[in-house]
Amino acid sequence: MSDAPGVDDVDGMTGTRSPRIRPPIFEMGLKGYLWGEGAVHLAKAADRLARELDVRIVFDPQHVDIPAVAAATGDLLVFAQHMDPVTPGRGVGYVLAEALRDAGAVGTLLNHAEHRLTLADIDRSIARARATGLATIVCCDSPDEAAAVAMLGPDIVLAEPPDLIATDRSAATELPWFVERTVELVGRIDPSIVVMCGAGVRTPGDAARMIALGVGGTGSTSAILTAEDPVATMTAMIEAVHRAWTERPGGA
Amino acid sequence: MSDAPGVDDVDGMTGTRSPRIRPPIFEMGLKGYLWGEGAVHLAKAADRLARELDVRIVFDPQHVDIPAVAAATGDLLVFAQHMDPVTPGRGVGYVLAEALRDAGAVGTLLNHAEHRLTLADIDRSIARARATGLATIVCCDSPDEAAAVAMLGPDIVLAEPPDLIATDRSAATELPWFVERTVELVGRIDPSIVVMCGAGVRTPGDAARMIALGVGGTGSTSAILTAEDPVATMTAMIEAVHRAWTERPGGA
Amino acid sequence: MSDAPGVDDVDGMTGTRSPRIRPPIFEMGLKGYLWGEGAVHLAKAADRLARELDVRIVFDPQHVDIPAVAAATGDLLVFAQHMDPVTPGRGVGYVLAEALRDAGAVGTLLNHAEHRLTLADIDRSIARARATGLATIVCCDSPDEAAAVAMLGPDIVLAEPPDLIATDRSAATELPWFVERTVELVGRIDPSIVVMCGAGVRTPGDAARMIALGVGGTGSTSAILTAEDPVATMTAMIEAVHRAWTERPGGA
Amino acid sequence: MSDAPGVDDVDGMTGTRSPRIRPPIFEMGLKGYLWGEGAVHLAKAADRLARELDVRIVFDPQHVDIPAVAAATGDLLVFAQHMDPVTPGRGVGYVLAEALRDAGAVGTLLNHAEHRLTLADIDRSIARARATGLATIVCCDSPDEAAAVAMLGPDIVLAEPPDLIATDRSAATELPWFVERTVELVGRIDPSIVVMCGAGVRTPGDAARMIALGVGGTGSTSAILTAEDPVATMTAMIEAVHRAWTERPGGA
Repeated sequence: MSDAPGVDDVDGMTGTRSPRIRPPIFEMGLKGYLWGEGAVHLAKAADRLARELDVRIVFDPQHVDIPAVAAATGDLLVFAQHMDPVTPGRGVGYVLAEALRDAGAVGTLLNHAEHRLTLADIDRSIARARATGLATIVCCDSPDEAAAVAMLGPDIVLAEPPDLIATDRSAATELPWFVERTVELVGRIDPSIVVMCGAGVRTPGDAARMIALGVGGTGSTSAILTAEDPVATMTAMIEAVHRAWTERPGGA
Repeated sequence: MSDAPGVDDVDGMTGTRSPRIRPPIFEMGLKGYLWGEGAVHLAKAADRLARELDVRIVFDPQHVDIPAVAAATGDLLVFAQHMDPVTPGRGVGYVLAEALRDAGAVGTLLNHAEHRLTLADIDRSIARARATGLATIVCCDSPDEAAAVAMLGPDIVLAEPPDLIATDRSAATELPWFVERTVELVGRIDPSIVVMCGAGVRTPGDAARMIALGVGGTGSTSAILTAEDPVATMTAMIEAVHRAWTERPGGA
Repeated sequence: MSDAPGVDDVDGMTGTRSPRIRPPIFEMGLKGYLWGEGAVHLAKAADRLARELDVRIVFDPQHVDIPAVAAATGDLLVFAQHMDPVTPGRGVGYVLAEALRDAGAVGTLLNHAEHRLTLADIDRSIARARATGLATIVCCDSPDEAAAVAMLGPDIVLAEPPDLIATDRSAATELPWFVERTVELVGRIDPSIVVMCGAGVRTPGDAARMIALGVGGTGSTSAILTAEDPVATMTAMIEAVHRAWTERPGGA
Repeated sequence: MSDAPGVDDVDGMTGTRSPRIRPPIFEMGLKGYLWGEGAVHLAKAADRLARELDVRIVFDPQHVDIPAVAAATGDLLVFAQHMDPVTPGRGVGYVLAEALRDAGAVGTLLNHAEHRLTLADIDRSIARARATGLATIVCCDSPDEAAAVAMLGPDIVLAEPPDLIATDRSAATELPWFVERTVELVGRIDPSIVVMCGAGVRTPGDAARMIALGVGGTGSTSAILTAEDPVATMTAMIEAVHRAWTERPGGA
C-alpha cells in the first residue's frame, strides 16, 4: 500500500466498511434462469461446497427468493441482484437496503451490464449498503471504469467485457490484458478492494485461467444454468477456482 | 357494453384475463415505509379485515417480503410493487413474473408515478402478467392516460393526479372531475376494467368520497404508515370503503 | 365516425390540434446516418419531390441540423427526431419545444423504438407540442399501443413491429394483419389521426404495398441512406407512395 | 505529480486529449431558459468578454441553436448541453458527436445533475468526444464522484452539490470543504484535468470566492438568466472571475 497514496484518504472519506469478503470468490449468478424451488435446490448444493472448500460463494437469486435461500443455507453469501439507493419511505417498486438485509441478504450486486446505473446512483447505493451493513459487488465494463468505481469505495469490483457476457468466449483467454489491467489499476487505488473478472467463463479451465491472471474471483451463470447437470458443472468450476487459488504464485 | 363497440375485439386481441378482482378494492401500498416483521404484522391485520368485510384488499410489500406475507395470510391479495417484462433467462436484477407467482404473489402494480415505465414496457408487462396468471393494476396520471392504458387490457387502472400523491389534499375533494372523467372514459372502453383513483386519501371520509364518485376502489400509504396506530387507521379507512360501497346508488 | 362514440369527447378533452398533415405522408428518417452538408443536400432533393408530387415529406435530421435544413427548403416538413416534455427553465440537455419551433421545425417524432418514452412523457410531450404549435408523430410497437397512443391525441401514429426495423423484411409483406389492425383500431378511436406503418420498407414495392393496406403514410431510413444513390432510391420510393395513393380504392 | 503514481498510465490508457482549455473558465449555461434570437444576443455579449478578458467562456445553448451561436461568435467555446455515446448509424433522437462538431460545437457537457448518465455512457461518451475532437465537461455530485470521473479522462470535471443547484446558497460559502476536497482528489489523480465547481453561484462575490478556493472555473445559469439585465450580470461575474484569478496565490 506504500505506493498508493490515496488509499488512506479514500478510506477516511467513505467511512467504515462492512467486514471484507476474503478471496477466492465465486459468484453464482441466477439472473432470471432459476427461481423458487430450483433456486433453493442449487443454493443448498452451493452451500455444501462453501463449507467444504476454501471459496466464498456469492449466490444471487431473484429478490423474492432471498428469504428461502437464506433460510436454507449457512455458508453461502446471499446477495441481491440489484438494490436501489432509496431510503425508508416513498419509492414504489424500489429495492430498499434495510428490507434486503432483514430478509437475509448480506450484500448486493450493482450496475451489471444488464442493469446499468447512473454514476450518482452507484455512489449513493454504495453509501446505502455501507450504512446498512451490506457488502457491494459493483460491475463495470472496462479497466478504466473499474478504477472509477474503486474511487467510490465498493467491497468488490467485477469487470466484464460486455461483448463476451453469455458467450462461449472467455475474457481470460480472449482479453488477458483486460483482466491484468483491471487488477493493476484497482490494486493501485485500494488493494483492499477485491477484483473479480468474468464474461464467457464456461469451463473449469476458464475459471482457473481467470484466477491465474491475478483476480480474487470470477463467476458464471449461463454455462451452469443451461448445463445438463447444473450442480455438477458448478461444482467442477468452483473446485477449479479453489485449486487455481492454492496453486497461484504466493498462494496458500 | 352495447355502446362500447371496441370491447369485444380488444378482448379477443389480448387473450384470456386472469379471474377478475371484484370491487370494492382497497390498495394498502407499503412502498418503502414498512418491511420485514412490521409488514407481516400489518398484513395479518389486513387479512382479518379482508375476511370480515366485503372488500378486496391489495397488499404490496417489498419484493423480499412477498413470501412471508403470502404465507401468513389467506384472503389478502398479495401484489408486487413492480414487475419487469423480462422472460426467464438473462436480466440481472429484473423482477420475473414466474418468480413472483411462485413466491405467492397474485398480481403486480405497474407504472406508479414513482416508478414510471415506457409505453412498450407497460404493454409487454401486462402481456407477461396475463401469460403467468398474475393480475395487473396499472397506474397513470390523468384520465387520458387511463384511457390509453385501458386499450392495453389491464385488470385495474389506478389514476392519481401526481401532484397530490403523499399530500393531505385528496383527489376526491380537490379534483372530482378527474375521478369522474376517468371512470367515464375507461368504462366506455371496457366496463370490465375496474377503475381506482387515489392520491391524498388520508381519512375514512376521503376514502368514502372517492367511492361515492363512482370508482371501484382506492388506496392509501403514507396516511396509514405514518399514523400513530397504523392498524386502527387502516381499519377505519377500509370500513369506510365498505360502507360507502354498500350505500352507493345501486349498491348491494 | 358514427360508430366511434368517445371521439368527440376525446377531441374536446385534448384541445385544438395543429393544422393536420394531409396524407399520403413519407417519413425520411435520418437517425444518425447523415448530418451537416449531407443532410442539407438530401433535404433539397426531398424538397423538390414535395413540390412536384402530392406527398407530404417529413424529414427529421439531427437537432443541430434543423436550422440549416429548414432554411434550405420550403415544402419539406422538418421534424425533430425527439423532443422532451420540459417547459422553459431548468433541464440541461433536454430538447425544448419552443426552441425547436423557433429553429424552423414544424413537428417532432416521439417514442421511436430506438428512443422509448414513458407513458407520462408521451402524454406530456404531446401536450407541449400542441401548446407550441408543433405536430406529433408518435411511434409504437403494436396495434394495441397505437390505440393507446390514439387516446392521447397525437396528429399521426406510426406503428412498427420492432423486430423488423432496419431489416429487409417489410411489415407490409410479413405482417399485413399488424398494419390492417392498426388502421382499424385507430380509425375507430379518431379517424382524423393519420396512421402510418413502417419497418423493413426497403423498395418502392414495399412502400406501395404498405399504402395499399390502408395506411396514410410510411417511411424509410436505412434502405435509402445506405443505398449507392440515396436521392434516386428516395425518389423511387416516394413516387411509389404517390402512385399507390392515387390508385388506392377511393383514391384521388 | 510525483505523488500521483497512476497518472502516466492513466494518460497512456486513454489516448491523446483534445487541446486543453486553459483556466480560468466560466460556464454560461443556458439550459432551457433562453433560445433562438435571445441566445444569440447573449452569446455575442459573452464573445466580446472572451476577447477582452483572459477568461475562457463555455456557452451551451439548446442543440438547435448551436449553429447560429457558433456562426455569430469567434472566441466563445460553444458546447452542447448533452451528447450521446452513439456512433453514426441508428439511434433516433440521440445526439451524435460528429453532427455537433460539424455544426460548430467544440465540446459537450455530460452528466449534469438534471441529466444523469450511466457510468458506462459517461465512459463511452468521453471516448466518442475524444475520437471526434470535442472537449468534455463531466458533471458530478461529490468529491468522490469527481475522482471517479477523473479516472475516465475528461478535460474538465465540474462538481456541484445537487441540493444547492438553482438556489441562492453558494457552494463556495456553504460547503468550502466540498470544493477543496474536489480540487485535492482530482489534482492527485491527474493535475492536467481542470476542476470546476458550481451551484448557487449568484453574485460576483460568489464567483470570486469559488476561484479563491482553488478551482479553475465556475459557472452560473439562473442568477444570470433571471436577472433584470442578464448581460450586465454576466459581465460582472466574469470580471470577478478574471480578477480573482489574477489575484490568487501564484496567479498571473
